Amino acid sequence: MSPSTTFPASTGSEVRLSARRNDCTSPTAGLAPGYLQANMIILPSRYANDFRSLCARNPVPCPLIGESSAVGRFDAVKSYISSLSSPSSPTKNKSESVIQTNDLDLRRDVGRYMVYQDAEPVKTGCLDIVEEWTSDHVAFLIGCSYSFETALINAGLPPPHVLAKRNVAMYRTTIPLCPAGVFTGSTYVVSMRAYNRADLSTVREITSKYHATHGEPIAWGWDALKKLGIKSIDIPDWGDSPVSQDGRPLASLVGSETVIPVFWGCGVTPQEAVMRAGLKGVVMAHLPGHMLLLDCVDEDIL
Amino acid sequence: MSPSTTFPASTGSEVRLSARRNDCTSPTAGLAPGYLQANMIILPSRYANDFRSLCARNPVPCPLIGESSAVGRFDAVKSYISSLSSPSSPTKNKSESVIQTNDLDLRRDVGRYMVYQDAEPVKTGCLDIVEEWTSDHVAFLIGCSYSFETALINAGLPPPHVLAKRNVAMYRTTIPLCPAGVFTGSTYVVSMRAYNRADLSTVREITSKYHATHGEPIAWGWDALKKLGIKSIDIPDWGDSPVSQDGRPLASLVGSETVIPVFWGCGVTPQEAVMRAGLKGVVMAHLPGHMLLLDCVDEDIL
Repeated sequence: MSPSTTFPASTGSEVRLSARRNDCTSPTAGLAPGYLQANMIILPSRYANDFRSLCARNPVPCPLIGESSAVGRFDAVKSYISSLSSPSSPTKNKSESVIQTNDLDLRRDVGRYMVYQDAEPVKTGCLDIVEEWTSDHVAFLIGCSYSFETALINAGLPPPHVLAKRNVAMYRTTIPLCPAGVFTGSTYVVSMRAYNRADLSTVREITSKYHATHGEPIAWGWDALKKLGIKSIDIPDWGDSPVSQDGRPLASLVGSETVIPVFWGCGVTPQEAVMRAGLKGVVMAHLPGHMLLLDCVDEDIL
Repeated sequence: MSPSTTFPASTGSEVRLSARRNDCTSPTAGLAPGYLQANMIILPSRYANDFRSLCARNPVPCPLIGESSAVGRFDAVKSYISSLSSPSSPTKNKSESVIQTNDLDLRRDVGRYMVYQDAEPVKTGCLDIVEEWTSDHVAFLIGCSYSFETALINAGLPPPHVLAKRNVAMYRTTIPLCPAGVFTGSTYVVSMRAYNRADLSTVREITSKYHATHGEPIAWGWDALKKLGIKSIDIPDWGDSPVSQDGRPLASLVGSETVIPVFWGCGVTPQEAVMRAGLKGVVMAHLPGHMLLLDCVDEDIL
């Protein structure tokens, strides 16, 4: 059952306030269609500069779109959208207020959170982080592929997992991130959607516009599995095992010349990088799938 | 012999005007110390958007710092520096004029050029591209690691190839670039400088500030060779075979626990990507090592 049929909220603000009341405990896919959803990572301030650098050096898997407005502030965010260079309008500065969001409490406005202590999870799926948040924490917002999935659906090319009401399949790869400070030894995480080879160029073109939410795919075709170091298409590291657009297990189509896997940078990448860096102290994040809803719409970041 | 001892020009402008007079036909390493030097690629305009996107998605090997001010214009450049997000001051917009350079002729102001027709080289080392330049061409400027080499020298950590008055060693790798439009199937090119393991953290920190000219290294240590797909440290794809700081062949130190290879993203990457994409028409570039000198200094891009 689609989350949107159980929780028909219509704006980002409504979902956010529901989460604050602990009334939004399911994944946010399909909620408030068109409103921007963000991955969130909250770090001790001593790691903030290195994390910004990690994102600047790896913008495809780690598109940083905002951060809390000052160390310890949980009620306002500042936007990175204006400093993201858009290939089509590199010198055009977008409004710095594009992701400014009214009535915000980063400690409560995500449906479910993760809490890590010294790189080990200590809470999974908790409803708020009021106790864990300190005056030394900085929150970072990372773009989410839900933005381009809406565009694919509108173009008549819905991702198979959306049609099947499943979670998207995500995989660890062996492709290294460019290291930044304490963040070394990490690799890309990718999400995968199967498409007909004939639709590949259209799929690439549609998603290429969403450069703040992973942009066009980073690899495609069956030989990409080996290049990315993915052992089995049927065993993702996160999400559900993948299907084709007509609902068949994708594993039954390995090597097909008509249906191919297409891989995008994934917003789980920075969370993985934070874990692999073995950061000391308390780190917090959204529970994967349970995003922060913002007041702006997907088109605001194009 | 160091180029600077044969051609002691002291400003970017002096080198540029010398090149225009065909008086600057040697590599530009060491010329006008502290002035920004840039890689240059000139493409038919139909490829310009994809190339901008390639750079935006791969900022470490392809740091786009400027482009010609309009299609067909060879006498002015516009800066991307203001839209590059600096991890330390992401919302601070640098002056858009930072790389504006007076008295510029992109067709003559590089000492030696490359000309490609349909992805095949047709001229190597020519002194100008006045005949080849058309009203449909767009020139792109890419940051160059000479910027951080000056900083390393000033910190008492000169790269070994500088001490030995050799060219830096550059290697093709198997690390894929994030594709962008027509630019698919390309991989990182890296430059390598050997350092004592004890100096690695200082070397990383110094170069990390130069995010517009490749920033900190992307890999280090002897096991990085395998990760990057480099078969032999002694056989670079461009430049001279590498040495240690005391001048020994680096190949004699393979596996050393004290001296290790350190790899950075390299400005040859976009030129390789352009070649591998099999672009139709006339593409031009600087001859590797023969950079465009600008009027601004390295510190302007920090």
